[in-house]
Amino acid sequence: MDLNADLGEGFGIWRLGDDEALLDLVTSANVACGFHGGDPPTMRRVCGAAAERGVAVGAQVGYRDLAGFGRRHIEYAFTDLRDEVTYQLGALDAFCRLFRTRVRYLKPHGALYHAAAVDESQAAALVAAVNEYDHELPILCAPGSTLAQLAAGAGLRVVAEGFADRGYLPNGSLVPRTAPGALITDPDEVATRAVRMATEHTVVAVDGTEIPCHVASICLHGDTPGAVAAAALVRAALIDAGVTPRPFA
Amino acid sequence: MDLNADLGEGFGIWRLGDDEALLDLVTSANVACGFHGGDPPTMRRVCGAAAERGVAVGAQVGYRDLAGFGRRHIEYAFTDLRDEVTYQLGALDAFCRLFRTRVRYLKPHGALYHAAAVDESQAAALVAAVNEYDHELPILCAPGSTLAQLAAGAGLRVVAEGFADRGYLPNGSLVPRTAPGALITDPDEVATRAVRMATEHTVVAVDGTEIPCHVASICLHGDTPGAVAAAALVRAALIDAGVTPRPFA
Amino acid sequence: MDLNADLGEGFGIWRLGDDEALLDLVTSANVACGFHGGDPPTMRRVCGAAAERGVAVGAQVGYRDLAGFGRRHIEYAFTDLRDEVTYQLGALDAFCRLFRTRVRYLKPHGALYHAAAVDESQAAALVAAVNEYDHELPILCAPGSTLAQLAAGAGLRVVAEGFADRGYLPNGSLVPRTAPGALITDPDEVATRAVRMATEHTVVAVDGTEIPCHVASICLHGDTPGAVAAAALVRAALIDAGVTPRPFA
Amino acid sequence: MDLNADLGEGFGIWRLGDDEALLDLVTSANVACGFHGGDPPTMRRVCGAAAERGVAVGAQVGYRDLAGFGRRHIEYAFTDLRDEVTYQLGALDAFCRLFRTRVRYLKPHGALYHAAAVDESQAAALVAAVNEYDHELPILCAPGSTLAQLAAGAGLRVVAEGFADRGYLPNGSLVPRTAPGALITDPDEVATRAVRMATEHTVVAVDGTEIPCHVASICLHGDTPGAVAAAALVRAALIDAGVTPRPFA
Repeated sequence: MDLNADLGEGFGIWRLGDDEALLDLVTSANVACGFHGGDPPTMRRVCGAAAERGVAVGAQVGYRDLAGFGRRHIEYAFTDLRDEVTYQLGALDAFCRLFRTRVRYLKPHGALYHAAAVDESQAAALVAAVNEYDHELPILCAPGSTLAQLAAGAGLRVVAEGFADRGYLPNGSLVPRTAPGALITDPDEVATRAVRMATEHTVVAVDGTEIPCHVASICLHGDTPGAVAAAALVRAALIDAGVTPRPFA
Repeated sequence: MDLNADLGEGFGIWRLGDDEALLDLVTSANVACGFHGGDPPTMRRVCGAAAERGVAVGAQVGYRDLAGFGRRHIEYAFTDLRDEVTYQLGALDAFCRLFRTRVRYLKPHGALYHAAAVDESQAAALVAAVNEYDHELPILCAPGSTLAQLAAGAGLRVVAEGFADRGYLPNGSLVPRTAPGALITDPDEVATRAVRMATEHTVVAVDGTEIPCHVASICLHGDTPGAVAAAALVRAALIDAGVTPRPFA
Repeated sequence: MDLNADLGEGFGIWRLGDDEALLDLVTSANVACGFHGGDPPTMRRVCGAAAERGVAVGAQVGYRDLAGFGRRHIEYAFTDLRDEVTYQLGALDAFCRLFRTRVRYLKPHGALYHAAAVDESQAAALVAAVNEYDHELPILCAPGSTLAQLAAGAGLRVVAEGFADRGYLPNGSLVPRTAPGALITDPDEVATRAVRMATEHTVVAVDGTEIPCHVASICLHGDTPGAVAAAALVRAALIDAGVTPRPFA
Repeated sequence: MDLNADLGEGFGIWRLGDDEALLDLVTSANVACGFHGGDPPTMRRVCGAAAERGVAVGAQVGYRDLAGFGRRHIEYAFTDLRDEVTYQLGALDAFCRLFRTRVRYLKPHGALYHAAAVDESQAAALVAAVNEYDHELPILCAPGSTLAQLAAGAGLRVVAEGFADRGYLPNGSLVPRTAPGALITDPDEVATRAVRMATEHTVVAVDGTEIPCHVASICLHGDTPGAVAAAALVRAALIDAGVTPRPFA
């Protein structure tokens, strides 16, 4: 099982999350590429630290929106979005090359993640960018999303991720953030769910039923108080259960 | 002899210069990388059009300063500048790869060009970025500049460029823009000087003396009225004189 | 009848439209405030030139999106949009004050114009910003839009604008840009329609019926080839018909 | 004696310093205006909180450089800098007006502060912006600086500030940051120095001599660990010594 988290999301003087601590826990680092967050020195530092630890680096591409941290939906023309993704991919790849490695996957950030899950044009833009840049590059996204479908249709490798700290509906999709049961806040329960995802490939939905959950990566969060400790607990629980965290890529 | 010009310097809705016309005249395109000008769709378009014509693409890297078009000096920390150059190099390279080519050289833009000609820290940042990213990548710059010296010292290939439309001092440096004789505005004289640079490796300085001028590329300008016609005249005069314009890279 | 047009929409080195020419034709200048276009020196220059000519200055507020020129929809939180509008209003007002005048109205730009015509949250953000900043400030917008309704409901003055170069549906709304009859390209016809709007308060809809059109301002466009000549024709035709162009504000 | 500190220097999702805590300690808030840091919702929040507490709001204007937090020197044209300062002044004033108050003074930030202390063009740009916008607006700056001299020469009110946590040379200027004695790190000593500045109008220089120090405001820092506690100690020590912190404006 792979463990992924967002990293390198500071900008200039401003920091966000604890990159160093998370790098010791994850096996895949979704590195911000400068459009919603992240800057060149941070990208270099995170790529170097990831390479040292054998952590795979993925391009966490986002909208061009520092003020909104890539969390507000933007209606992009297909070609504009495709080209901005190519740009971000290439920029991050340059830093990976300095450490004798490469960008190993792509994961969209924030509002782009959500848009690409349902919007054909934005999903297609991501697929086109990856397909043109490197057909071997996997896309890390939600199983069943429009992005997953279009990427698979284009012959790209799709890697499904799960969220141990989010509630699931019986149909396998996430409970909307505003609905009851959206967030699992008890760290022990989160760890238990992660283990179940990794060993039994299931998750208990909000209605109590056990549903299938076939994911190759679990997404950890690092930007809230206590997040790093919770992530450490997930990792430890997986190892206790005999699951070795390793990059999918 | 190579002919280079700045291209792809629009941003969003705003255009600058006539990229299409210049691409038919130059052999090397200094493509803006998004920091002082240029945006992803423009970079893609110019890289594609350059590849079609066999025009070499160079990374025209600049300060992060859209509002000042990279023309105001910024006091960068060495690592910040180095990493921003790496970022720009990688971003442009991504678009080149789409057209089965690569970034073939680097040329600094505007205030960075001027700073790197005299400032050791900024010149060293450019050299470090190129050296780490691709030791084979030439740097296009002014002969005798600090950048040329540091690049050569680091074992990088340095390509000297000349300016047929600028006056030269007897010591081989350019007449400052504010001094008499700084600009040669007569297109025929510019063409004559270009031919002399290419065939005799000399230029007539402001004091009338003929001085050596060993350059492998002549820089054409495309952002003023009549610039494209003047560039076309230079190219035609070179061909008339038996000089074939071809990329140095 | 007032004539309004977008002005000051360049950024840094990049220009857009012919501000000087349009300033001699319009009675109200929608001045870009730096978020989708426009920059401080341009704002100062346009405010000064407008003051000289007795042209009223309006705040043409837009999304924070230079790369997209404010033309792509962005899903803003109510408070973020409200505060960005306040910021832009204050910034432009500072330049107006230098010339002993004030911002005289607000008009949203591009995607914000379209969003505020139908989206309650974005329209309410504009209304809140204006209401808090200066309750006497009119909003220039499409008659019948959500913005017009909310602004009127808040006790703000609403000024309706018409488009002499756009087709109208029988219900008084504009023909969508992608449908036949959306654009009137014949300058003489545009001028005729402007005169009819000003003198008879009607417009001929795409189905040939004459419908009421009560507008206090006609929007001229200056960013396409021939636009300034067409705008001049409209102005001349109005004067010929005995209509004096004058600011509504 | 006035106590001033930089506030509202976050941007978007990123926070910096503890605005709320500092607002309870200072009498003047230097509020970032969006160019080096700060954003509209933050500006509104800080202006509102300052108004509630009777804290004076000053425009902490900076270079247009979010990535460098306004800490790198930029070579601005006089008119560009002047107009960017006007823009920032107006934007912040809009938020002050919402709370029935006004921008009460201007203080340059970071590299602009340092440049204006020695560079005539940049100092003159600040003076011109203030003079045109509101001749009554004081400028808060280092005594003896070029900015102080030009501002006084233009008839503007100059308010001198001192740094209780910085070493002074016998000539009254600050010990450069790289030299021994530049920073006073012991909170008790900082408080003692603040009291001496307020009550005896002197400071002990690095060579042990007591020199005059006529300042109307003491600058507190809030962006380092322990900074708020140290600032609270300064305030408490002043009150103990019978000095009432109150805005100079």
